[in-house]
Amino acid sequence: MQKATLLIQCPDGKGIVAKVSQFVFSHGGNIVSSDQHSTDPDGGHFFMRVEFCFEEDQTSTETLEAGFEDLAGSLRATWEIHYDSRVMNMAIAVSQYDHCLVDLLYRVSHGELRVNIPLVVSNHETARGVVEQHGIPFHYLPVTKETRREQENQIMALLEGKSDFLVLARYMRILTKEFLDGCGPDMINIHHSFLPSFKGANPYRQAYDRGVKIIGATAHYVTLELDEGPIIAQAVEPVSHRDTVETLKQKGRGLEQRALAAAIQAHVEHRIIRYGNKTIVFK
Amino acid sequence: MQKATLLIQCPDGKGIVAKVSQFVFSHGGNIVSSDQHSTDPDGGHFFMRVEFCFEEDQTSTETLEAGFEDLAGSLRATWEIHYDSRVMNMAIAVSQYDHCLVDLLYRVSHGELRVNIPLVVSNHETARGVVEQHGIPFHYLPVTKETRREQENQIMALLEGKSDFLVLARYMRILTKEFLDGCGPDMINIHHSFLPSFKGANPYRQAYDRGVKIIGATAHYVTLELDEGPIIAQAVEPVSHRDTVETLKQKGRGLEQRALAAAIQAHVEHRIIRYGNKTIVFK
Amino acid sequence: MQKATLLIQCPDGKGIVAKVSQFVFSHGGNIVSSDQHSTDPDGGHFFMRVEFCFEEDQTSTETLEAGFEDLAGSLRATWEIHYDSRVMNMAIAVSQYDHCLVDLLYRVSHGELRVNIPLVVSNHETARGVVEQHGIPFHYLPVTKETRREQENQIMALLEGKSDFLVLARYMRILTKEFLDGCGPDMINIHHSFLPSFKGANPYRQAYDRGVKIIGATAHYVTLELDEGPIIAQAVEPVSHRDTVETLKQKGRGLEQRALAAAIQAHVEHRIIRYGNKTIVFK
Amino acid sequence: MQKATLLIQCPDGKGIVAKVSQFVFSHGGNIVSSDQHSTDPDGGHFFMRVEFCFEEDQTSTETLEAGFEDLAGSLRATWEIHYDSRVMNMAIAVSQYDHCLVDLLYRVSHGELRVNIPLVVSNHETARGVVEQHGIPFHYLPVTKETRREQENQIMALLEGKSDFLVLARYMRILTKEFLDGCGPDMINIHHSFLPSFKGANPYRQAYDRGVKIIGATAHYVTLELDEGPIIAQAVEPVSHRDTVETLKQKGRGLEQRALAAAIQAHVEHRIIRYGNKTIVFK
Repeated sequence: MQKATLLIQCPDGKGIVAKVSQFVFSHGGNIVSSDQHSTDPDGGHFFMRVEFCFEEDQTSTETLEAGFEDLAGSLRATWEIHYDSRVMNMAIAVSQYDHCLVDLLYRVSHGELRVNIPLVVSNHETARGVVEQHGIPFHYLPVTKETRREQENQIMALLEGKSDFLVLARYMRILTKEFLDGCGPDMINIHHSFLPSFKGANPYRQAYDRGVKIIGATAHYVTLELDEGPIIAQAVEPVSHRDTVETLKQKGRGLEQRALAAAIQAHVEHRIIRYGNKTIVFK
Repeated sequence: MQKATLLIQCPDGKGIVAKVSQFVFSHGGNIVSSDQHSTDPDGGHFFMRVEFCFEEDQTSTETLEAGFEDLAGSLRATWEIHYDSRVMNMAIAVSQYDHCLVDLLYRVSHGELRVNIPLVVSNHETARGVVEQHGIPFHYLPVTKETRREQENQIMALLEGKSDFLVLARYMRILTKEFLDGCGPDMINIHHSFLPSFKGANPYRQAYDRGVKIIGATAHYVTLELDEGPIIAQAVEPVSHRDTVETLKQKGRGLEQRALAAAIQAHVEHRIIRYGNKTIVFK
Repeated sequence: MQKATLLIQCPDGKGIVAKVSQFVFSHGGNIVSSDQHSTDPDGGHFFMRVEFCFEEDQTSTETLEAGFEDLAGSLRATWEIHYDSRVMNMAIAVSQYDHCLVDLLYRVSHGELRVNIPLVVSNHETARGVVEQHGIPFHYLPVTKETRREQENQIMALLEGKSDFLVLARYMRILTKEFLDGCGPDMINIHHSFLPSFKGANPYRQAYDRGVKIIGATAHYVTLELDEGPIIAQAVEPVSHRDTVETLKQKGRGLEQRALAAAIQAHVEHRIIRYGNKTIVFK
Repeated sequence: MQKATLLIQCPDGKGIVAKVSQFVFSHGGNIVSSDQHSTDPDGGHFFMRVEFCFEEDQTSTETLEAGFEDLAGSLRATWEIHYDSRVMNMAIAVSQYDHCLVDLLYRVSHGELRVNIPLVVSNHETARGVVEQHGIPFHYLPVTKETRREQENQIMALLEGKSDFLVLARYMRILTKEFLDGCGPDMINIHHSFLPSFKGANPYRQAYDRGVKIIGATAHYVTLELDEGPIIAQAVEPVSHRDTVETLKQKGRGLEQRALAAAIQAHVEHRIIRYGNKTIVFK
C-alpha cells in the first residue's frame, strides 16, 4: 500500500472535484482526505489537495502520473504529486541563535517531524556540538561582506542533490538574488516579528520602541523581497511594559520555534499551495 | 441557482468520496466545498460534508434526494440535506443573564448569523425590553419546582412547528427527560466553564475555589446527562489571583458569547456531524 | 470611606516607594494596592500607582493634595490623583459601524464599565436608535471635506465641560490638529488592525492582500500622527486562506470590542501612565 | 550591591505597605518592585512581595532579618527572604518522556532559567545521554511496586542537602506520603491536562474520549492529593476532531514545556506565595 498526495491548482470550473475523485477511484485509489478552496465561486482560481492510498502492484506511479497529466491538461491545471514512501531532505542554515535548530533536531529525532536532515550549515561554530551529537554533518562556513558570493556558492554546492528544501532557522545573513535563484523556491525562513510589522533588523528592539502589547513570529517562504514572502504560519504572545528587549527575545524564542515547526510540518505534509504572494494551508 | 449541503456518515470503505462527487456531478451540481473525516483509515467510520450548487429547473430536490437515497443505501449511510434557500428558525431560552441573548440579537440583526428568531422564552421578565425592541415575541413563563412540567409543556407548545432548534442562552433551569425527549436533539447549551471541569452549579465559584489560572466556556448539544453532551466549541482566557468570583463572571461573559456564537454558526451552516458523544465540526 | 488613586512619575531614586507609602500612611490612608515600574533600575524613570482608602472627615482632599504637592516637589514628580466617588464622563464618537458602541452601551448599562455617557456624536444616523434606547443624547453631525472644521467645532462645543475623555468607537474621519489640540490628550481610538501593521484605510483589505494568518485590533491614545499613538491594548485571532475580506471584518469586530473595552477599563480605573509614546498599564 | 526578595503573608490591616516600605528604606534598601494582594479589603488575608537592593557592607543580612523578625511579629506575619546571590538548586525527576527535561536543560544552559541542576533521577535510562552531555549527574533508579519505598529512599538520599526543590518533569510514578513528607513542600509537577479536567492516568486519551475542542497542561505544587495541589501555571491550545490521541500528545508536549517553564521561572524568582490550596503569582 502506497500513499500519495496530489496538489492541484487551476481555473475554477464545474465538476473538478468529481473528475479528480473519479480519476483516483478509477486507478484503484481510495481517497483518505480531500480538501479544496476557491478564491471566488464565480470564476476564480481553484485549489485542491487529495490524499489517497493505492496498490503499487496494481497501479504504477508512472501510469498514475501519465493519466493525471492528461486530466490536468483538460483542466489547465498545475499539479504535483508526492509519495509518502519518499522522506524529504531538509537542510538547515543557522547563525548563533540555535533555539529553532535545537527544537527541530528534537522533533526530528523523536519522530514528530518526518524528514531527513542531510546537513547543517552555519556562519558560526556555536551549533556544532548539538548538531554532531545527532550524527548530522555540520559545515562551518564563515562569511564577510567580501566573501559573500563565494560562501553562498559553497552552500549551494553542499545542498546540490542532497536537499529538497532549506530552512533558515535564524540564519542572520541576507542572501543574494543569485543564491535565491540558484536554490529554487523552497526555502522557509523564520522572522522574529509579527509580519508585516517590524521588518528588517532588530525586530524585538523595534517592538519594544513601539510599545506593542503583543509580539509575534512569522514563518514564510523566502522571496527576493526581504521579509515579504508568502506567510505560512504565525504565533503571538502578550507582553507588557515590564518586558525589556531581552525578555521580548526570550519570549520570542518559543514563538519562533512554534511558528517555524508548524510551517515545516505543513510543508512536509504537502499541505501548502502557493498562489501569488499567499499560501493556501490545508489543515 | 440553489445551494445545498449534504452531511453523510457511514462505515468507511473504498471510493466513497468518488461516488458522492460523481453523484453530485451527474446531477448537474458543482461542488463548492467538500470535507471528510475518517475515525480510522483501516475500517473506521466515515463522515463527509459536501456543499454544492445546482440548477433547480434542471434537477428538482425530489430527484436529488431520491437519487441520493439509493446511493446512501449502498453505502449504508445516514444522511441529511439542507438547502441554502431555507433559513433556520432558532428559538432562544434565557433567564436573568442576557449577555448571550443580546450578542445573538446583534449578530442576527446585523446579518452575521443567518437565522430567524421566532420567539424568546424566559422564566424572568429581565430580557423583555431588548427582545421586543427587535420585534421578536417574548414569552414570560415563570416556573417553580411544582410547575416545572407544566411550564415545559408551555414551552413545547410555543416551539411546536416554529423552531428548528433551541438555544439555551444561559437558561438556568434543569430540563426534564420528558422535555428533552419531546424537543428533539437539536438543543444547544452554553455552559459557563471549560467542560469537563466544573460541571453543575456555580462554575465560576468552583473555578475560583480551585485557583485555576485559565477559565473557559463550552457550547454543547444538550443530552440527558447534564453538562455531558457533545462539545461543539470552547473558549478560554487567562485569569489570576486578583480575580474574584465577580470578575471571573465578567470575563466569562465574553467567553460564553464567543463559544455560543461559534457553535451556532457551525450548526446553522450544517458543519456539524454528531457521532457518539462527540462532534465532527468541519471548518 | 473614600478611595483614591495616585499616579506618579519621576526620575528613579532611592526610597520613593517608602516615601509615598509613608505619606499615605501618615495621612490616615490604607494602601489597597501599589504597583511600580522602573525603565532602568540604574537611573531610569520611575512610575507608581497607589490605590488607598482614607476617611474624608479626618483628612480632606485639600490637605492630601497640598501635602502631596510638597512631596512631589522633592521627588521632581508629575502626578495626578483620582477619587473613586467621581464617576468619569465618557463621550463617544461613532460612524456607521456600531458594534463597539453597542458593546460599550451594554457594559455600561450592566455595571461592567463604571462611566457616565453624557452623549454620542456621529456623522451618520445609523446608531441613533440604540443610543436613544439607553436614554443618552445622540447628536447627528454630518460632515463633508468642506465642513470639517465647522463640524469639529460643533463636537468641541458639545463636549465642553461634559466629557472627561472621548472614545472614537470606529469614528471613520481623520481629525484635524486643531481638534486634537482643543480636545486634550485623553482620546482613545480603536484601530482595526494589529498596529503597526496595516495603518490607514481598509486594514482588513490590507491584511487579506498580505495573506497574514493572524489578525488583530489595537486600542491607543490619539496623537497627531495617525495610528501612531501610545498603544493601550491589543487583541488577536487566527485566520486562514478561507477568510474573505468580509469574514475578516466579522472576526475583527469581536477583537475591536475586546481591545477597546480593555483599554477603556484600564483608563477608567486610572491604571495607565503615558510615557513618551508608550503606556505603562498596571494590572 | 545585594538584591533581596521578601515574601510576606499576614492578616490584612492598616499601613502594612507603609511599614514594610519604611523598614526597607530605614535599612538603606531601595525598593525595585513591590506588589501586594488582599483576599478581601475588609479584613481578609494580605500578601506582599518586595524586591529591594541594599549594600551588604552597610546592612548585614543578619541585621536585616533580625529587624524584620520584629516587624513580622507585630504584623503576625509569616515571611521568607531570598538573596539574589544565592542560585537555587533544582533536581529533576523524569521517566521516558524527556521533552520537558530537554526544554529545561536548554533554558538553563542558555541562561534563560537561573538555577543549578545538581542531578537528574529517572526510573528509565532513556534520558541519560542528554543529561550527561550537559555535564549533569544522571541517576538511574529503576522501580517496581515492591521496591517503591526503597527507591524513594534512594532518591531522598541523593537530594539530601543538594536540592532546594524537585521538579517532576513527567515522572510517571505516584509518590508515597512518606516521600512527600520527607522531601518538603517544594515539589513542582507538570500534569498533562487542563486540571481539574482529566486527573489521573492517560489524560490525552480522556480528552480524546470526551471530545474537547481545547487541551491543556497544568504545572502545580505537589500535595498528598494526586493532581489536587495548588496550580501555578496553565497553558492551552485548540484541537479538533482530526486529532488522534497521538497528535494530542504531540501538541501537548509544547503546552507541558511552556506551563512547566513558566511555573519554575515564577518559583525561582520567588514570585509565588501559597495560600490554602491556591497560589498568588506576582507578575
